[in-house]
Amino acid sequence: MQYTEDFIWKENLNVKDLVNAYGSIGFQSYELKKASDLIIKMKKNGAKIYLSFTSNMVTSGLRGFFAQNIKLGLCDIIVTTVGSIEEDIMKAFGDKFILGSFSSNDQELYERGQNRVGNIYITSKNYSSLEAKLQDILLELYNLKKSWTISEMLKEIGLKLNDENSILYQAAKNNVPIFCPAITDGSMGFHLFLFKQDHPDFQVDIIDDFKNIIFSTSHDEKKGIIALGGGVSKQHVILTTLINGGADYALYMTTASPRSGSLSGATTDEAKSWGKIKDEADAVTVIGDVTITYPLALISAIETLKEDGLLKNYKG
Amino acid sequence: MQYTEDFIWKENLNVKDLVNAYGSIGFQSYELKKASDLIIKMKKNGAKIYLSFTSNMVTSGLRGFFAQNIKLGLCDIIVTTVGSIEEDIMKAFGDKFILGSFSSNDQELYERGQNRVGNIYITSKNYSSLEAKLQDILLELYNLKKSWTISEMLKEIGLKLNDENSILYQAAKNNVPIFCPAITDGSMGFHLFLFKQDHPDFQVDIIDDFKNIIFSTSHDEKKGIIALGGGVSKQHVILTTLINGGADYALYMTTASPRSGSLSGATTDEAKSWGKIKDEADAVTVIGDVTITYPLALISAIETLKEDGLLKNYKG
Amino acid sequence: MQYTEDFIWKENLNVKDLVNAYGSIGFQSYELKKASDLIIKMKKNGAKIYLSFTSNMVTSGLRGFFAQNIKLGLCDIIVTTVGSIEEDIMKAFGDKFILGSFSSNDQELYERGQNRVGNIYITSKNYSSLEAKLQDILLELYNLKKSWTISEMLKEIGLKLNDENSILYQAAKNNVPIFCPAITDGSMGFHLFLFKQDHPDFQVDIIDDFKNIIFSTSHDEKKGIIALGGGVSKQHVILTTLINGGADYALYMTTASPRSGSLSGATTDEAKSWGKIKDEADAVTVIGDVTITYPLALISAIETLKEDGLLKNYKG
Amino acid sequence: MQYTEDFIWKENLNVKDLVNAYGSIGFQSYELKKASDLIIKMKKNGAKIYLSFTSNMVTSGLRGFFAQNIKLGLCDIIVTTVGSIEEDIMKAFGDKFILGSFSSNDQELYERGQNRVGNIYITSKNYSSLEAKLQDILLELYNLKKSWTISEMLKEIGLKLNDENSILYQAAKNNVPIFCPAITDGSMGFHLFLFKQDHPDFQVDIIDDFKNIIFSTSHDEKKGIIALGGGVSKQHVILTTLINGGADYALYMTTASPRSGSLSGATTDEAKSWGKIKDEADAVTVIGDVTITYPLALISAIETLKEDGLLKNYKG
Repeated sequence: MQYTEDFIWKENLNVKDLVNAYGSIGFQSYELKKASDLIIKMKKNGAKIYLSFTSNMVTSGLRGFFAQNIKLGLCDIIVTTVGSIEEDIMKAFGDKFILGSFSSNDQELYERGQNRVGNIYITSKNYSSLEAKLQDILLELYNLKKSWTISEMLKEIGLKLNDENSILYQAAKNNVPIFCPAITDGSMGFHLFLFKQDHPDFQVDIIDDFKNIIFSTSHDEKKGIIALGGGVSKQHVILTTLINGGADYALYMTTASPRSGSLSGATTDEAKSWGKIKDEADAVTVIGDVTITYPLALISAIETLKEDGLLKNYKG
Repeated sequence: MQYTEDFIWKENLNVKDLVNAYGSIGFQSYELKKASDLIIKMKKNGAKIYLSFTSNMVTSGLRGFFAQNIKLGLCDIIVTTVGSIEEDIMKAFGDKFILGSFSSNDQELYERGQNRVGNIYITSKNYSSLEAKLQDILLELYNLKKSWTISEMLKEIGLKLNDENSILYQAAKNNVPIFCPAITDGSMGFHLFLFKQDHPDFQVDIIDDFKNIIFSTSHDEKKGIIALGGGVSKQHVILTTLINGGADYALYMTTASPRSGSLSGATTDEAKSWGKIKDEADAVTVIGDVTITYPLALISAIETLKEDGLLKNYKG
Repeated sequence: MQYTEDFIWKENLNVKDLVNAYGSIGFQSYELKKASDLIIKMKKNGAKIYLSFTSNMVTSGLRGFFAQNIKLGLCDIIVTTVGSIEEDIMKAFGDKFILGSFSSNDQELYERGQNRVGNIYITSKNYSSLEAKLQDILLELYNLKKSWTISEMLKEIGLKLNDENSILYQAAKNNVPIFCPAITDGSMGFHLFLFKQDHPDFQVDIIDDFKNIIFSTSHDEKKGIIALGGGVSKQHVILTTLINGGADYALYMTTASPRSGSLSGATTDEAKSWGKIKDEADAVTVIGDVTITYPLALISAIETLKEDGLLKNYKG
Repeated sequence: MQYTEDFIWKENLNVKDLVNAYGSIGFQSYELKKASDLIIKMKKNGAKIYLSFTSNMVTSGLRGFFAQNIKLGLCDIIVTTVGSIEEDIMKAFGDKFILGSFSSNDQELYERGQNRVGNIYITSKNYSSLEAKLQDILLELYNLKKSWTISEMLKEIGLKLNDENSILYQAAKNNVPIFCPAITDGSMGFHLFLFKQDHPDFQVDIIDDFKNIIFSTSHDEKKGIIALGGGVSKQHVILTTLINGGADYALYMTTASPRSGSLSGATTDEAKSWGKIKDEADAVTVIGDVTITYPLALISAIETLKEDGLLKNYKG
């Protein structure tokens, strides 16, 4: 039996020691420590790791950390929404997003051409500069072939972005496919539409891409889910693993509440009714903003995996 | 200036009177009354209404109400996720979902083949019976033509469902297009993949469907959003109206919190930084489970619209 | 086994019929219907009903409804915080609270002397006019005797308020004691302090009042809890019933999340580990703003209790 | 203008560096960095710091950290609920609380005599052993004098607890008064009642204790609030500072939502309408479980204050 223990600060406390201490504090801190342990377990047991996240996380500074996670071999397949793609590209071209306030005067922001996402502002200029770039990129793709799956397209784009902190770049370089089941659900959709006006034989094949993700693993392989936030991305990784016999490990980090029956708020308890997870320790839900919780859980896992030589592309 | 007023129950109180009383109670009840007023305003001003909802709402008994809303002319364009489509079809074929508990023993449910969505259970049998039906339907579609947009496909399916309470059926009959930007994100995706194995020239064209939704309105037309829950569906209606100059009216009903920067939790305040909504009364956010709040807001609006002769297909 | 059913609006739908329909919709609407049924069960089985609520609910228009609930015999003991007492008195003297916005410019409100509670504003003048009244009332009490329990004091005050919509008035008239375990936690505390400066032998006896509440019931009596919101008031009714063998019925209505371990967010599941509730149907938690959910659950119960002749002071 | 920056893990990252990085990530991580800065500012400007917390935090391992915070001079006045007092004493006498699960079988826990608080279990035995100890302590107090304020009583109890990790012990040793406006709202209430049965002249004076807290500061002194969670404790520190002209700095850390109008969910925005806080940087709200967020914000502040020689009782 495990007991709560009084937490005491010690000088120069590092993140790994704090997360260890969380393991004896209780409530969400205790779940966070279990999350960190579960990530280590996924890696040690050679699971294929499906990471899903929503676009607001790429709006935030987590973007560079996701890129680093890919480089270090901490995820094998990525599923996200199109906003993530757009903003990763914007940042690779040097665009910067402003840190502001949740209680802004939104009318004033509008007049300044600043679009608010929580306490971060994206300027309208950022969006218009994306347009020209995307049209050029789409033309290059089109010149290679006429029909693309989204994951192929994102790999090609990634190879063109010369930015170590870019998710698309690191994914392309490290053969981590990025799936985006709703590619038209953003300004990318508008740019694809514009491009197709002039190139009617340009095709995006979503059924083939679904084939790609369901063949990304098999019944025999161990599979782990790290779902940050909810929505289509979370649903897609759960679906993919279910079709392949269910995930062996599942970590959900979310702010949503399970009480409305939404998938975004669904905990890993609910996942047990759908899948094959049996061991309590293999299904962890952490409630809280991932900009705080995800770095903590990951850093603590990374420090351990480093000692065990389980990090890719890492030379100490 | 408006003041809170003591609410007093009167015998046989009807829903409309309760919602009126909410207008003087405060907190979310006050916002709910404003939501009801805003829907009336959208209709009276002839706005094109974009309704988005998530699939868990179709899992619930709201499904029949959405169908009725379409019939009565309370929405012009629908955006939802693929789970909604699947479950609407299941129910049209007579499948029934079980009312259960949020704190079930999920291991036991799994062994009984029951998949939990909040406090509702869907049996695995429901999913397998869907498979055969969908393969037949896809073959019929394929025999008509090889390339489909999703909204066309859903219209054809709707016409085949003989169920007054079906969303797809009512939408098809009343020329309300249904958009589903991530059609592969559910068992439908798997069935499309299976079908395409045997019919490789079958095509789903998502770019053309994006064209359909952005041409569903124009800068000149008044546009209203009713976004229930978040995710891709909410994003898609906001995007569509933005491309056409921004919505004139926006109602968000959600359980998510704005403090994580997610779109699902974004309030209509945030929308003001993105769009052109200027009048406080034209942007309303109601926090709460839509299975409770949406019927209240709508019923109250319907009773008023009925008196004003603004309901379609209604003979008193 | 119970199934979800398609909800369909019918003309002039009344609240009771809507709540009945909720019983087949799912998620929180289903829990709300169970809440309504549980209240009926409490009354039919002659349980002593403990109602707790927080002061923001008295800021809202629920105040009059609570008063009516008392009059109709729907609660036997009340526990609340001191803000409820203060604002009930203010309103009994004619003060009015302004309906505003959650996203006000709070600096401007401050300059106008308006204090914001969510989307309701209380003016500073309201507080200063309370001061004179309270000093007079305290003097009258002091002239009767020197040492008071809080519940006695609140009864005396209630008898002086000539307002049918006042909680204190109806409670006094109907012999429903009001307990307020933290009487100094508001401007009342300051007024008690001022009064005691001039009348040092004035005493408030909280231990005697705790005796009063634990002797308000017994092991043998059936006991029901209706806890709206959390905090000290919720804790106090749970504690009182536990000391008397545990509640037989418990209904919690709250917006708080159970995942932080706070009592405010604790569901009735957690209560089962503390008490003697065994039957799933006797412990119901409804997540959502009580300004919406409480009237619904209560009105539906009231309409049934009326038919069964179980309402006090009601002449149809 | 400040921009989001890509977060990149570096080896052996310590907590202070992570919190610094949070300052460029966005959403709640950005607010957490501001929280840490605000605590440093409070100390540097010599503010009197009012710390409030709820009892579930003392159930958790934060208890030892609160004790250490007092020792290091990071708070000057404490307000909490009676559960905190009881559990601090239990732990000082060696009782241990079990780490469990949010989705326990609560019926089984009840049969094992384990009472669940989130994912922590307290055994019924813990409560019964408290009884004997408290009766002894109350007798010792009674032998000193007959009438006590709660803060005096808690100081006397603290001096008897020989536990460095005890909140009461450190508070007593460091002259930090602990206020508990609802002392009867827990088993302490029951023990006080039992004791008074045999010692009817034993008195607890709450009005005098309210005098103590309002005289704990003045209009001239700078005042800072750190409110963890909500309820009576949060209300009491806000009230105390308001009576003395308002707080200069306010930090709220909570999981509750502002949208129900409850004080627990009220943000520091709302506080601006009540008080005198003008500078955006002096009012910070962090949404999230304090078992995760509070150690992060505090550790980061402590490391800085240490360098500046602003920690009490600290010898490097």
